[in-house]
Amino acid sequence: MEGMTTSVPPYAAASPQTGRPRPQTMAEKILSRRGDADVYAGDLAVVEVDQVMVVDSIAQSFIERMERDLGAAPKYPERVSIVVDHVAPASTVSVAQAQKEAREYAAKTGVRLFDVGRGICHQVLMEEGLAQPGWIVLGSDSHSTTYGAVAAFGSGMGATDIALAAASGKTWLRVPESVKVTLSGELRPGVSAKDVALEMIRVLGADGATYQSVEIHAGDRFTRGERMTLANLCVEAGAKAGLVVPGGDILTDYGYDVPEWVYPDAGATYVRDVELDLSALRPRMSAPSEVDNVHDVAELRGLKVDQVFIGTCTNGRIEDLHAAAEVLRGQRVSPGTRLLVIPASSRVMEQALEDGTLLTLQRAGAVLGTPGCGPCMGRHQGVLAPGEVCVSTSNRNFIGRMGDKDARIYLASPAVAAATAVMGRVALPEDLTRDLAPA
Amino acid sequence: MEGMTTSVPPYAAASPQTGRPRPQTMAEKILSRRGDADVYAGDLAVVEVDQVMVVDSIAQSFIERMERDLGAAPKYPERVSIVVDHVAPASTVSVAQAQKEAREYAAKTGVRLFDVGRGICHQVLMEEGLAQPGWIVLGSDSHSTTYGAVAAFGSGMGATDIALAAASGKTWLRVPESVKVTLSGELRPGVSAKDVALEMIRVLGADGATYQSVEIHAGDRFTRGERMTLANLCVEAGAKAGLVVPGGDILTDYGYDVPEWVYPDAGATYVRDVELDLSALRPRMSAPSEVDNVHDVAELRGLKVDQVFIGTCTNGRIEDLHAAAEVLRGQRVSPGTRLLVIPASSRVMEQALEDGTLLTLQRAGAVLGTPGCGPCMGRHQGVLAPGEVCVSTSNRNFIGRMGDKDARIYLASPAVAAATAVMGRVALPEDLTRDLAPA
Repeated sequence: MEGMTTSVPPYAAASPQTGRPRPQTMAEKILSRRGDADVYAGDLAVVEVDQVMVVDSIAQSFIERMERDLGAAPKYPERVSIVVDHVAPASTVSVAQAQKEAREYAAKTGVRLFDVGRGICHQVLMEEGLAQPGWIVLGSDSHSTTYGAVAAFGSGMGATDIALAAASGKTWLRVPESVKVTLSGELRPGVSAKDVALEMIRVLGADGATYQSVEIHAGDRFTRGERMTLANLCVEAGAKAGLVVPGGDILTDYGYDVPEWVYPDAGATYVRDVELDLSALRPRMSAPSEVDNVHDVAELRGLKVDQVFIGTCTNGRIEDLHAAAEVLRGQRVSPGTRLLVIPASSRVMEQALEDGTLLTLQRAGAVLGTPGCGPCMGRHQGVLAPGEVCVSTSNRNFIGRMGDKDARIYLASPAVAAATAVMGRVALPEDLTRDLAPA
Repeated sequence: MEGMTTSVPPYAAASPQTGRPRPQTMAEKILSRRGDADVYAGDLAVVEVDQVMVVDSIAQSFIERMERDLGAAPKYPERVSIVVDHVAPASTVSVAQAQKEAREYAAKTGVRLFDVGRGICHQVLMEEGLAQPGWIVLGSDSHSTTYGAVAAFGSGMGATDIALAAASGKTWLRVPESVKVTLSGELRPGVSAKDVALEMIRVLGADGATYQSVEIHAGDRFTRGERMTLANLCVEAGAKAGLVVPGGDILTDYGYDVPEWVYPDAGATYVRDVELDLSALRPRMSAPSEVDNVHDVAELRGLKVDQVFIGTCTNGRIEDLHAAAEVLRGQRVSPGTRLLVIPASSRVMEQALEDGTLLTLQRAGAVLGTPGCGPCMGRHQGVLAPGEVCVSTSNRNFIGRMGDKDARIYLASPAVAAATAVMGRVALPEDLTRDLAPA
């Protein structure tokens, strides 16, 4: 695989001429700053962890590691958040029991708890300001790369590593090599950050950036939410982190303090350079059963679809619901198709209630669900039966991901998902006319 | 048990003087009209069935009975409705598979299908005009007594009986004796139809009306929705049907055609007469683990509550959400308590979106869910952990009903449920003041 050849990269040598430190990538910058030495790809780094995020489905393991294996309390309770999102509200007694234990643990230790309905972990931490430029955020969810949207080094780890970070306030890791992804040109109307992200995964390959940091140079393009979509998908190329370089006043306009040191240095070492011309991009769709199996939507047009799901940490934000509502306004979901819409958080829900977006979606026949991960992992709220086809705005289309192993999942943008719901078949928004749409 | 003594009731004799038919109860009227003879309590009646309702969780058994055991198609497809509501959206692959088969069966046979998100069976049939005064409606759900709200003889049956009714267009049953419940006086502010219903069950006893028709004489009190609450709860006394006598223009104002013959005759025979003075009624709460274990809310005030659930076929209608919103406006759900609000149908959802009710609830910290049965049966969307306490607007508080056998369920009105959510403890709306409520 292309990505594997980068495991022994041609590191730039230190400059004997100047004695100055070698130029650093963004990942190297952050890991150096939060550690006690300048580190470079391949080095082992011990770093401060600014926020540890634990999701409901890992909470019991996390607590067991903390209490039974480590005999430790969180060193900095304010740096630990537990989010009840993966199966919320609880679908079984054992899930309910795990969530109860998480609540009790939070009450006992003083760590933050975001309970049922508050939303998806990554969205909630972002909304709560618990990811900041230059921070290191570890989450017990693979899509913790999402924090890279605000120039935080976000990475997913298992319960044991997460517990060690919570107990010690630190973690250790091998500093990843970086892939530089440079975006140029402007998106055409109807093409979204999700399409960019899917195209990026296609180019990188599903394991094309394994344990690497994908450093995305987007200029001043994209909102915070769109940057979350980009950073979120990086893990689908196997990345350790996905860092979107702050451009223009994008982040400061959201109120972030972006430290000068966080930007990558000119001359930093990348194992790979990828350029994407956004102006050439058309709406994309990832076909079963790998995220990098990416096609033009037009190639898949007409495929009969049983369920459409708009939501998740990838595309459940207000701009995503707006994009869907724009397509669905005055239309009706096809009678043979179910459209599930699950806002990423209670704040997204509230905003969509306030601005009429949910009403538009409801009138079009969407089925609204409780903020959280929804059916993304196939654990409740829209599990797929054998043979069913789903178009989803989520991030994974693996076999069995959303239910039966013989269900098929196609990943797309909210606009494409919405158009597909109306037509009952894979479609682009431009395929919709009043004439064509079912009554 | 008091109710058991009525199994050999003192039937009124036919009048040898006049030769005219004996006076009939409302159940006798409807079963006579839809059969081919005047029938009285204790008679066997063979009657036309105007609507057969099948819920998702019974659909597979129903289809098996129809196709394998009976080798029959529905005689009148337009008289059969399948509603996907009990576990919607699907929580497991097997649930998804059952729903898929229900869809395929509906497409093949032409019966109506109300899919994921349309709402709870009884609410949906009522909204769709599939229960009319004088009709016989059989449902594969015990709370099919609900149709009595519009003077339809509604009754729950198992998959086999339901299939026979769908295949033949008829059913047979022993004509039930009737209990007459007469309401007098007017409710105080803050007391609702749910409180009346709980009080009625307390007086009747949990099996006090086994296989009887509870005929409720309410005058022109109560909206259609409130009448649904009353009729719905009748099955909790073991009733075969719960019929609310149309009063004033209540039903005609909703557009119903109320036939003259449907009213009970003066002098009809009742096995029991119950009178309830509404003016004396205070908010009621049913404590674990029988519905007739009814107390004044004030007696239970202060009990710590983990989850509050507002919804179900008993109390998930727009007037219920309004009652909850009135209490919750400007308040916040207690941090230690989860408030789930699940509208009974997509129309209720849409109305609550249009009039701002959902926004009020969301701002107060409610967790909104997909229209359907929600956690009422403990199969998803809010299952209870061991030891948890739930205040619910639903209709059953049996051991294990909403999850673990060591969870406890208290039944109450939407207003009491809302006040309880704000206080985190069993409370009346009058217990809330700005001072007391958590920030």
